[in-house]
Order: sequence, then structure tokens, then C-alpha cells
Amino acid sequence: MASEKRLEVVTCTAPVNIAVIKYWGKRDEELILPINSSLSVTLHQDQLKTTTTAAISRDFTEDRIWLNGREEDVGQPRLQACLREIRRLARKRRSDGHEDPLPLSLSYKVHVASVNNFPTAAGLASSAAGYACLAYALARVYGVESDLSEVARRGSGSACRSLYGGFVEWQMGERADGKDSIARQVAPESHWPELRVLILVVSTEKKPTGSTAGMQTSVETSALLRFRAEALVPARMAEMTRCVRKRDFQAFGQLTMKDSNQFHATCMDTFPPISYLNDTSRRIIHLVHCFNAHHRQTKVAYTFDAGANAVIFTLDDTVAEFVAAVRHSFPPELNGDKFLKGLPVEPVPLSDELKAALGTDPTPGGIKYIIATQVGPGPQVLDDPGAHLLGPDGLPKAAA
Amino acid sequence: MASEKRLEVVTCTAPVNIAVIKYWGKRDEELILPINSSLSVTLHQDQLKTTTTAAISRDFTEDRIWLNGREEDVGQPRLQACLREIRRLARKRRSDGHEDPLPLSLSYKVHVASVNNFPTAAGLASSAAGYACLAYALARVYGVESDLSEVARRGSGSACRSLYGGFVEWQMGERADGKDSIARQVAPESHWPELRVLILVVSTEKKPTGSTAGMQTSVETSALLRFRAEALVPARMAEMTRCVRKRDFQAFGQLTMKDSNQFHATCMDTFPPISYLNDTSRRIIHLVHCFNAHHRQTKVAYTFDAGANAVIFTLDDTVAEFVAAVRHSFPPELNGDKFLKGLPVEPVPLSDELKAALGTDPTPGGIKYIIATQVGPGPQVLDDPGAHLLGPDGLPKAAA
Repeated sequence: MASEKRLEVVTCTAPVNIAVIKYWGKRDEELILPINSSLSVTLHQDQLKTTTTAAISRDFTEDRIWLNGREEDVGQPRLQACLREIRRLARKRRSDGHEDPLPLSLSYKVHVASVNNFPTAAGLASSAAGYACLAYALARVYGVESDLSEVARRGSGSACRSLYGGFVEWQMGERADGKDSIARQVAPESHWPELRVLILVVSTEKKPTGSTAGMQTSVETSALLRFRAEALVPARMAEMTRCVRKRDFQAFGQLTMKDSNQFHATCMDTFPPISYLNDTSRRIIHLVHCFNAHHRQTKVAYTFDAGANAVIFTLDDTVAEFVAAVRHSFPPELNGDKFLKGLPVEPVPLSDELKAALGTDPTPGGIKYIIATQVGPGPQVLDDPGAHLLGPDGLPKAAA
Repeated sequence: MASEKRLEVVTCTAPVNIAVIKYWGKRDEELILPINSSLSVTLHQDQLKTTTTAAISRDFTEDRIWLNGREEDVGQPRLQACLREIRRLARKRRSDGHEDPLPLSLSYKVHVASVNNFPTAAGLASSAAGYACLAYALARVYGVESDLSEVARRGSGSACRSLYGGFVEWQMGERADGKDSIARQVAPESHWPELRVLILVVSTEKKPTGSTAGMQTSVETSALLRFRAEALVPARMAEMTRCVRKRDFQAFGQLTMKDSNQFHATCMDTFPPISYLNDTSRRIIHLVHCFNAHHRQTKVAYTFDAGANAVIFTLDDTVAEFVAAVRHSFPPELNGDKFLKGLPVEPVPLSDELKAALGTDPTPGGIKYIIATQVGPGPQVLDDPGAHLLGPDGLPKAAA
């Protein structure tokens, strides 16, 4: 047995994922078990990631957590569920007789610090990346090597999809205890190198309905959601898996748009109704359909989560033209150089034919900025000790 | 037999109706047979009506029609279908041996002139009132006394519901020839005297997708629409009929809102998606739910057709307070006296509690004006010859 260390510290990063077959609605609120399977694309961490440091030490007197530099209540139920679950897995591993690479006491308290490299104000769902990163970091520091779906899922359902890179399905499972409700990679990030992702950050006035409360009301009131989950999603999961495997962008794009629309339809069928899309979102939808109609094929596809921001899928040869179309329809109100973040996109002129096809009156300032990114890998461990967000004293290195 | 007259002329009026269980989608495009039954409230003609004069004469050389003073193409298929159908019914009546009160030749050509007492630019569906009025006027001038559902329906599906006052259901029917797809009064206009209707005319930039094209795309692409029509609407029709018969405003209002939302959900599930609601529509929805939450009961209900305008149902004791709430949330940009049309509504102050409950930032100019109205009777014949829109020469009295 190795000698007992005073402080064990691990720093990891985890990605954001965007669902192309949407998750909306739980069949078990406590265990966070979904009413249907879902499928997502993991976005590259060069543009969007959460970084989390977890440390355990016999000197810590209580579990503590800091998010973006601010200490948060560690007692909140979902965080507690994650901690309970990882400690359960660690105990199980020990009792199973595995050699323990990190022989610290399981009773030691943990300190966690987590930051996002993107503004939370942008309305990008950060909880999936956040809880995936938490699960991954806790697993490393507690020496757990089993499937982390449940740990991440207990924090935020869609977080289990951020545990893998590339294309990931979250199988709804059938068991009441949720043991078969797990994430699984459908194809790795290298599978479809031409795929590109543009996040169109839309200006909004106010925070929309939270997804936890929203999906609960939907499950209780929307007959269309029940029908979708039971009768429509299974075939859509199979078809989306086929689209990804075959790299069939036409079919992938169309199904992605249809599934986004159907999710928002079930929100509208909720009572009271939930509207995540605003007039700018709808103009983006219109722009995409005009762009595709002009090209007589599905070259671009949109999807919207529980907010007004659009996530656009396209292939590398179409990015520049579509970004030009977005600039044309939504003239930036910022400096031009700040409108586009992430992967470089070369400016190209828009043909008069396409301009005419887009038709709609420009909406200045409707889109705040674009983040250009691509499919990326799953969570990573950072070996550089300089990356730790917690110092040797177990406290955040830099206060917010 | 009466002596043959040179010119037979009849002038009628017909009402607008607003569906509380929505019609969306045809099972037969030619016969205009719906995929589900629907139920509507007939609005009072003091505020909204179409007036139509029909004249037949042996001197007319062709069928002609003028809408709002402008001659239109009489050859358009739906108009032709109405004319064909009314002449078929008139022939049938003759061959059945009825004494003919208007013994003009069925081969005589018809002139029709029609006007609305409300601006078409307001985005209020005028085709239902228009075709109901056409069917009613043609029936009078051709001496037809049978059910006019089919004549009106062939012009515009929902027009058959404007053939009756009060509360009207359009039974979808089962026959392939549509003979059992007819409108029927559920309760007369006198049944629920406290019911009031407010039309909130919303400012919009552009004309939305037409309902004919829209519903066709929905039937072809929305699995949720199919499910709604087959599995959900039958029970909703029964429940809405019960609500009307019992004058149960709580249940009537809730089901009205839910059905409007579900209709717009199926539009969103259409591909490409159809959005009739804009940000102002959604603010009105939010306002209604806040208003009801404040009162801890459903005092007000919204419904939206294929456009951004809201139609509000409430009871007479709530009109003044709700109009005050609308003025608060959507400060008029017109002169105050023009903001409210139709039935008088006395100004009342808004309580601070309600103001706080409404919460949202005011949206000046979001609502152009309000038309206050109530449940009304079906089509009427105008006996005053001065009401005729066509002169003795069979041409419009006043050109546009």
C-alpha cells in the first residue's frame, strides 16, 4: 500500500453537448430518468468547456464548492446526489477488492472549484458540461473507474452525454433503479471531420423558464409530449444513428431541425405554455430554410435548446457562405471583429441571388455574436499542476 | 306560378366565428373535409360582419363578383365550387317538386358584391364570414332552403360555422362524399349572455403563411397533428360542448387556451415549421396567465388563429379590469379614444397588486387596438332595399 497523502488533487475539463434528438421530461425526478432516449453532438473544448478541480484531504472539515470563483451551497440536492453516488462507487470498488491507486480515506471531505470558459450570461446550457466535469474529476480523485453516467446524470440529465466525445446517445433504459439509463458513444469525434457547429447567441430580454421546472410541467400537461416520447422518438433515434454513421448530412440536418421543432411544439402544448423561441429565433429558422431552398438541398440545419440561441450544423465548405448570410440578415451592432468567435471563418461576398432569396428585412443586433466550433472529444485530465484551480491549501487560487 | 322577374336581388349579413376547438388540416382538399371536428363561437355582427348582395337576372351575361368594391376573378375554384353547389341544390329542390318562390331560370348569371365592416389589413380571418354570407345570399336568391354547410364549406372550411349564431360545431363526418360534414348549433347566442370577446389586434410586419397552404403542409409532415386529430380532439369536443352547455367559464377558458396552444404546437411541428405567434402574442399569453394567477382562477382565456392577433374570452364583470391590464402592459400609441372599438368599456384603475403581478416591462404599441364584442346571431337577411350593394343595373352602387 502506498503511503497516505495529505492532499489529492485532480483537474479535468469537460465539453458542452447539443442534442439533435431532444431530451425533455423525466420519468423519475429523483433519479433523473428520462421519458425518451436522446442523442447529442459533443462540442469542441477549444471553444466551450468547463474546467473543474477536485481535491480531497484529511485536513478539510467540510465539502465545499466554488463556481466561477464564488462559493456555492454544497448542500443543494443534486450536488449531494453526485457526491453520494461517487462515494458509493468508490466504496464498491474497494469492497470488490480492486487495488486502490489513491488510498485516501473515503470519509475525507472534498473541495471543488469549477469555471467555464464562456459567459454564463450567453444562455448556453452550462450544467451539462459542469456536472460531467464534476463527475469526471470526482472519479479521478476517488479512484473510480466505472461508468459515470449515473453520477453525472444525478447532477443534470444531459450531463451524462458530456462524458464522451463525438456523437453520444443517452439510452433511456427500462429499469426502475436507472442502472441501464446510461450514455454511450455512437461515433468518435474523428468520425465526421467536415461537420461544423455555429452557435448564434441571440439577444434576449429575460431568463426563460428553467428546464427542470419546464419539463416537469410538460410531462404533467402535454399529451403531445407523451406521444412523441413513446411513439416517435424510438424511430428517430434509430434514424439519427444511421445518419451519423453514414455521415448523411441531408438526412441528419432535416431530422435535427424536425426534432428541435417537435421539442418546441411540446413546450407550446404545455400548460401554461412554454416559449423558448423569440422573434429572432424564428427569423433564424426562416433564414436557414431560405438558404437551403436557394441551394435546393439541406446545407444548414438549426437546433434550439431551452432558450432563444440557435445552434447551427453545417459542413466546412458552407460555413463561410452561411456566416455571410447571417451577417446580411442580422447586421452586427458590435465591432465586426468581435461578432465572430472561435474557429476562423474567412469573409466571402454573398451572391445577389442568395441575397434575394433571403428576402427578409435585416434585423440589426438580433444576434449578439457567433461562436464557430466543431465536434470535439470528451473530458480530459490536465496533467499540468499549474492548471489546478485550487492551491495547496485547498482554496481557490484566485478569488472572483 | 308567379310572373318572371327581371332582377332578383337579396342582401344578407354574416358573422365572423372564432374556433375554441381548432380546425387544422383537411382529409379531402377538393371537398374541404376536415381531419377533426371543431367548435366555434359566433361573434356579434354589430362589430364584425360581412354584407353580401347577390342578384340574378336574365340580362347578366356572366357571373361576376366584387369584393370590397373591387372586381375579382369569378373563375377561382372555390367560388366556382360554391356556385356549382348552390345551383345543384336549387335544381334538386325543383326536381323534388317544391313550389319555387323565385322562379327565375337557374341558367341566369349571378352578380355578387361583398364588403366587410372591418379592415382586412387587421388580419382578422374574413373568409369564413365572406363565404357564409355568399352561401346564405345565393341560397336566398336561388330559393334554396336546405342545409348550406356544404356550399359554405366549399368556399372555406370554417365558413360553415358562420352559418349559425351562438356556439357552433362543425362535425367532421365520416362519409367520403362529405354529406355528413356539417355545421350544427350547440347553443344559441342567448345561452351565455355574460360572455364577452376582446380582439387584440397585434402589430405585425408581414403576412403569415396562408392557412390553406399551411394546413396542407401540416397534414403532410406533422405526426403530432395526426395524433391530435385522431386521439385528442374527440374528447375535447365532448368536453367543450359540456363547458358551453354548463356555462362553466373556468373549464371553457382552460380548454380554449390549451386547444389554441396545441394547434400552434402542431404548426411548430410542421416542416418547415409555421409560426403564427410573435413576441407580442407570447406577451399576451403571459399576461393572461399572470392575470389568472393573480385572481387564483381562470377569469380570462386567449385563443389565436392563423395569425398574431389574440382573441380573448372573459365574462362581463372582468372586461374592464382586463382591458386596464392590457393598457398597462401595452401602452397605446394611438389616441386613447381610438384604442378601444366596439362595445363600451368603462376605464377602471388597476390595483397595485395586479400591476405587480403583471410584472413584465410594458411594450408600447405592441397592440394596435382592441375590438370589444360578444356572442352574436347567425346570418341575417336585410329587408331594406337601400342596403343592397348592387344597383338596379346589377353593378356596385359605389365603386371603390
